[in-house]
Amino acid sequence: MSAANNPQLKSWVQVEPHSDFPIQNLPFGIFKTRYLAPGAGVAIGNFVLDLVYLHEQGYLDGLGLPSGIFNQAQLNGFFALGRKKISSVRERVSELLQYDNEELNAAAREIALVPMAEVRMLMPVQVHNYTDFYSSEEHATNVGSMFRDPKNALLPNWKHLPVGYHGRASSIVVSGTAIHRPYGQIKLPDQELPVFSASRKMDFELEMAFITCGESKLGNPISIKEAEANIAGLVIFNDWSARDIQQWEYVPLGPFLGKNFGSTLSPWVVTLDALEPFRVQGPEQNPQVLPYLQTEGKRNFDIQLEVYLQTEKSEATTICRSNMKYLYWNVAQQLAHHTINGCNIAVGDVYASGTISGPSPGSYGSLLELTWNGQKLIELSNGESRTFIQDGDSIIMKAFASNNQVRIGFGICEGKILPAKSL
Amino acid sequence: MSAANNPQLKSWVQVEPHSDFPIQNLPFGIFKTRYLAPGAGVAIGNFVLDLVYLHEQGYLDGLGLPSGIFNQAQLNGFFALGRKKISSVRERVSELLQYDNEELNAAAREIALVPMAEVRMLMPVQVHNYTDFYSSEEHATNVGSMFRDPKNALLPNWKHLPVGYHGRASSIVVSGTAIHRPYGQIKLPDQELPVFSASRKMDFELEMAFITCGESKLGNPISIKEAEANIAGLVIFNDWSARDIQQWEYVPLGPFLGKNFGSTLSPWVVTLDALEPFRVQGPEQNPQVLPYLQTEGKRNFDIQLEVYLQTEKSEATTICRSNMKYLYWNVAQQLAHHTINGCNIAVGDVYASGTISGPSPGSYGSLLELTWNGQKLIELSNGESRTFIQDGDSIIMKAFASNNQVRIGFGICEGKILPAKSL
Repeated sequence: MSAANNPQLKSWVQVEPHSDFPIQNLPFGIFKTRYLAPGAGVAIGNFVLDLVYLHEQGYLDGLGLPSGIFNQAQLNGFFALGRKKISSVRERVSELLQYDNEELNAAAREIALVPMAEVRMLMPVQVHNYTDFYSSEEHATNVGSMFRDPKNALLPNWKHLPVGYHGRASSIVVSGTAIHRPYGQIKLPDQELPVFSASRKMDFELEMAFITCGESKLGNPISIKEAEANIAGLVIFNDWSARDIQQWEYVPLGPFLGKNFGSTLSPWVVTLDALEPFRVQGPEQNPQVLPYLQTEGKRNFDIQLEVYLQTEKSEATTICRSNMKYLYWNVAQQLAHHTINGCNIAVGDVYASGTISGPSPGSYGSLLELTWNGQKLIELSNGESRTFIQDGDSIIMKAFASNNQVRIGFGICEGKILPAKSL
Repeated sequence: MSAANNPQLKSWVQVEPHSDFPIQNLPFGIFKTRYLAPGAGVAIGNFVLDLVYLHEQGYLDGLGLPSGIFNQAQLNGFFALGRKKISSVRERVSELLQYDNEELNAAAREIALVPMAEVRMLMPVQVHNYTDFYSSEEHATNVGSMFRDPKNALLPNWKHLPVGYHGRASSIVVSGTAIHRPYGQIKLPDQELPVFSASRKMDFELEMAFITCGESKLGNPISIKEAEANIAGLVIFNDWSARDIQQWEYVPLGPFLGKNFGSTLSPWVVTLDALEPFRVQGPEQNPQVLPYLQTEGKRNFDIQLEVYLQTEKSEATTICRSNMKYLYWNVAQQLAHHTINGCNIAVGDVYASGTISGPSPGSYGSLLELTWNGQKLIELSNGESRTFIQDGDSIIMKAFASNNQVRIGFGICEGKILPAKSL
């Protein structure tokens, strides 16, 4: 166990019992304030610890960090130092924050700790490449049942490889960014020709995504053993989907405009290091997968996931509870598969899991599944109901790993759907 | 007509009659030499005109160019100045190169002109986003006939929207970069389970791609009237495809590892300005497209395309002659459709056309179509034959627009397939 993961650790920063950000977490993000330019920080309780300040003042000396590495508007440069360096920074920050550590005196603490209420979180990385997998058996089965054949819901390749496709990097935004309802072509069931319309079937997809800290050269696969060394950590990911646009356009080359109007990620990159205590076995893989995809040990993560829908008139209502552990394909398999043909990766790439649905209807990770393509109503706490997302609705996703000793949270991934813009 | 397009213009640089790069072309690229760091240049005859030198010496004064704009390893910064500024630089370079212009004296000409034999061409842009369309009716019909139903070869959406999907930006390389045959999962027809193997059906796809010089904000569509103002120019594009990997993986989310092991583009960005004289009407679009896709006038480009296959034992044999004018969907329609949902674009994005096949079998733009999925042999000039690409084979693509006055060429887009690497 890494020293920073010790569940007994306490910090001199007051951290509420159910905080997402105890001293055992220490995720990395990019923040700015009214006075501070964008730079890297670490979440601790209700504060952001300013890494720019710590580094400039020498508190991170000895770790071999280039000057100015945190004084940047994205974490790419820091992540490019590699998994071990990221770990060493987290360990050192843990040390500085420990209850009995007095290296930061009262004045330094005052400067280094910025209240979360005063910061704006930005995109943690510049995303060069974005891939979306389709790794939940329950989700793929639900979609296959709805649109193809309930008896053969999974296509023949699904259990042999982690199906995935390329998404649009440019339209990934950070939590809190509102998204306008997209226009597009829709084929209504009672009409022969498609019509031009704002989407009438706006949906979310509950996903988790990993962000890379490694890069590879074209032609050089990353083996399944090396895969996790190339992953800095995880974020929550909402793959917004316009189901009607998607349904008309997606054959034969896959989703395009039904997805690329926006995807939202949570701002704090929770390291795989912090998630170590929450490793679990994934589902049994049967049929056996080919050798380049075979993993041993606990490669899934037990991370509880929640989705809330909040309308302009209602409080947030929980509409889904799922868990990342349900994923059939783990992150190491995803990255090993993605690169087995020599495809190269860059630092700051985003690799999303695909919708994470669980076995029970309440754990389905999209409105498409929760309402079975609009056939069932979702009842909200104030008596309103929904089939798909209406203008003014916000979708809020939460993720946290917890046991009886510690809670490692991700903060929130939130986005509001605004009316379609007038053209 | 722009002054730089005047077919009567002659340059003091000796340009051979069938050169791709007469004074009427002047495409932009990034080059380096043994002595010069990567920087921007313009092709003229058998030379590269060094824009870094011209700019530093004041020959481009008055155009409002930022200092150092050409002294960069990609054209993104220059292209970000916008279509009008790119045009003004081409016009000024045309002026400097004209027969009777003596602004560059003998010594300056000696420095400014670098023989192509001494340069290495690099990627012209850093690619942030890459999309591949599927805009040739003949190609879509051929593929639909082979794999689905010859009587309903085109899917219902095909004539209503330019079908496209996101590709992998990281693995786009410049002409001359060898590519290793990729490994992957293949489902052999006589076996129940997939096997792990190097691809046995290596193919090319003959495409053209446009590169953007505009950027847009998320949520703001680019109208069809504004579309071309956001396009700097075109390159040749080879969308290498491993057909066996693709066929097993591609349902339901589209091509992935069958494509993302590498795509090759030609190094010279030929401006839309230079191609003005070669505008032609596209195919009639019936049924009529929705208003946001309606274009007027000549929106296609009459650009002849050729593909050569060269083995380790043979000279290059022409295996395909096609033309960009066959495309059903034009570049303005592609960009207007891509952004109608608010998807944002960046400078340096690559948007490829999809395989450009013509009406006759000799004009099919892939081996898949030329050999009808391996059923017919391609005969080479020395008696060898091919169904798909073998190790050591090179694919060479050429593109040029020509009339009885002028020839606007693209140079070549070349790549060699090397044996699969030992793992």
